[in-house]
Amino acid sequence: MRHAPSSTHDRAPGSGASTAIGSEPSIPPRRGERGLIDAIRARVPAAPPWLVVGIGDDAAVAAPERGALEILTTDALVESVHFDRRLSSPADIGWKALAVNLSDVAAMGGTPRLALLSLGIPDSFEAPDADGLIDGFLALAADAGVTLAGGNITRSPGPLFVDVTVTGHARPRRVLTRGGGRPGDDLYVSGSIGGAAAGLTWWQQRGTAIEGMEACVARHRRPEPRIRLGALLGRNRAASACMDLSDGLADAVRQIAAASGTGAEVDAALLPVPDAARAWFVRTGADPEMAAVAGGDDYELLFAVPRRARGRLATVVRQARGVPVTRIGTLTADPAVVLRRAGATEPLPAGFVHF
Amino acid sequence: MRHAPSSTHDRAPGSGASTAIGSEPSIPPRRGERGLIDAIRARVPAAPPWLVVGIGDDAAVAAPERGALEILTTDALVESVHFDRRLSSPADIGWKALAVNLSDVAAMGGTPRLALLSLGIPDSFEAPDADGLIDGFLALAADAGVTLAGGNITRSPGPLFVDVTVTGHARPRRVLTRGGGRPGDDLYVSGSIGGAAAGLTWWQQRGTAIEGMEACVARHRRPEPRIRLGALLGRNRAASACMDLSDGLADAVRQIAAASGTGAEVDAALLPVPDAARAWFVRTGADPEMAAVAGGDDYELLFAVPRRARGRLATVVRQARGVPVTRIGTLTADPAVVLRRAGATEPLPAGFVHF
Repeated sequence: MRHAPSSTHDRAPGSGASTAIGSEPSIPPRRGERGLIDAIRARVPAAPPWLVVGIGDDAAVAAPERGALEILTTDALVESVHFDRRLSSPADIGWKALAVNLSDVAAMGGTPRLALLSLGIPDSFEAPDADGLIDGFLALAADAGVTLAGGNITRSPGPLFVDVTVTGHARPRRVLTRGGGRPGDDLYVSGSIGGAAAGLTWWQQRGTAIEGMEACVARHRRPEPRIRLGALLGRNRAASACMDLSDGLADAVRQIAAASGTGAEVDAALLPVPDAARAWFVRTGADPEMAAVAGGDDYELLFAVPRRARGRLATVVRQARGVPVTRIGTLTADPAVVLRRAGATEPLPAGFVHF
Repeated sequence: MRHAPSSTHDRAPGSGASTAIGSEPSIPPRRGERGLIDAIRARVPAAPPWLVVGIGDDAAVAAPERGALEILTTDALVESVHFDRRLSSPADIGWKALAVNLSDVAAMGGTPRLALLSLGIPDSFEAPDADGLIDGFLALAADAGVTLAGGNITRSPGPLFVDVTVTGHARPRRVLTRGGGRPGDDLYVSGSIGGAAAGLTWWQQRGTAIEGMEACVARHRRPEPRIRLGALLGRNRAASACMDLSDGLADAVRQIAAASGTGAEVDAALLPVPDAARAWFVRTGADPEMAAVAGGDDYELLFAVPRRARGRLATVVRQARGVPVTRIGTLTADPAVVLRRAGATEPLPAGFVHF
């Protein structure tokens, strides 16, 4: 954890040469970034033995997990793109920024271990907000057994940026990619789909009361990455391919099929859509299955299970501490990616275009 | 490399339920993020054998360097905080975003290996700009022997945001922290100091011609991280402590002294300040030594060398391919951190406050 590698945006005492870029005030009052780093250090639990150098030097230093491959991912949350501060508290934002990365490690069949946190903080984000963000981040880190080992803090002249890097590990030949599926493999999804998207639009449109809707909103605010399930699927070789649902089930099915060189058929009747989400989609005039497969932000896992691995999947499900998994379809030799309902098939929606 | 884990900011075809956060247009025309990922994949050289999964899955997977500790760092560059797009080209920005991270790995005595690139792209940053940024990033990656293994792309409703994570490695007991210095160790700095800060203010204030000033501006735009020097210092145990100068020499001296439990005395007459920078500081009415030690953005290394390691330092310098190193002072038992000039001492300026 260090402050930004900039240098040129603050008046150096005695230098007589201000080198600020841009016209925004460069020294708000409040606690400096060193104060925030100190606050973070005070909140971080004792370092595990494999962490040789933690927060406070130019970089973190860690002993690798012996005999394992390393998994690395980075994902950013950006204010007013990924979250709305009127809905998500600072702690929610910190939690979610870590969660989306943990979900990526889980989707590779890995076990997460270490995180780096890079913050771009606008002037409107006060010290208690930053503390709250750190608290939310560290609450999930503690749950997941992940160590915050370093990061970066800089000012943002625009939105709040929260960029997280997570590393994890998996044994060789236990890594789950998107590309290992084969025709005939069953497709499974964990948990439920459509809830986060329903919860967000319900909040945005100030929908009237629907029982169970708060749980959908909570899925948007504090997604629960399927850390244990992903690690178990990889460790037990129970899946041939895996991906998380950040951009929706339809997108994930398309990605796995494309990477695996297959098509896919999803059965609408099998989709685990929460009743509240279904009720809200209907109320907004949407096709509830299409809305559920297109809606993102459900950090569930989509995975393919070969026939020969069904017994291993049963073992995984027993060990997964109550995370439901639902068979929703199959990978097919036919390259089309379709939704089957009422005896007919239609194309699954395409993936999102982010910009 | 994947797009952002958001989900909720684009209209899902057929869903009937727009879940955009915020009021900015969420689907600009142009190339989507998948197009940019494809453009990046087309530019990235063939993957080295240790990279098991590269760009295009939920996360990257790499075999660790055998018998080594892993070094991890993340640093972000933010538009109008760290760079001005009127001065720095997209390629400059991509180069520098990687350079500041490589500098951190060098400061730990490590050898960089892998990078992740997380971009927050405003609508004003067109496809050719993004290509240019990638080209600058990959040019330095090629020089440094670093592989781009993944990342994230999202839209920014504000400034361009470039967050980079770099991992590298070093043998156990060859890592250089800030805290290993002892009283009596000599302090050395690589290259020169003050040039980047001088170059930036000269450009900002549209200074009149000074010979050598363009080289100072280039130091701001495309810093040259001391990759080889840092790795050699660590490998040869030639330094007891090391840090890079992102926030200026004065800050780095203070940080090393504080972490090492020493003071420090820097001799103003020994400071390697480029003539052009000195001339510019004088012209702006600044104290040239104070401006040089306070000015940041020089990605040089400050390191402490015990008496017994002087021979090893000579070996390092011979192998460092012409990177100059200059002795500028010593670590002291007295806890004060001072600049000596004209027979008197005065405090070194304090570090920057970034926000």
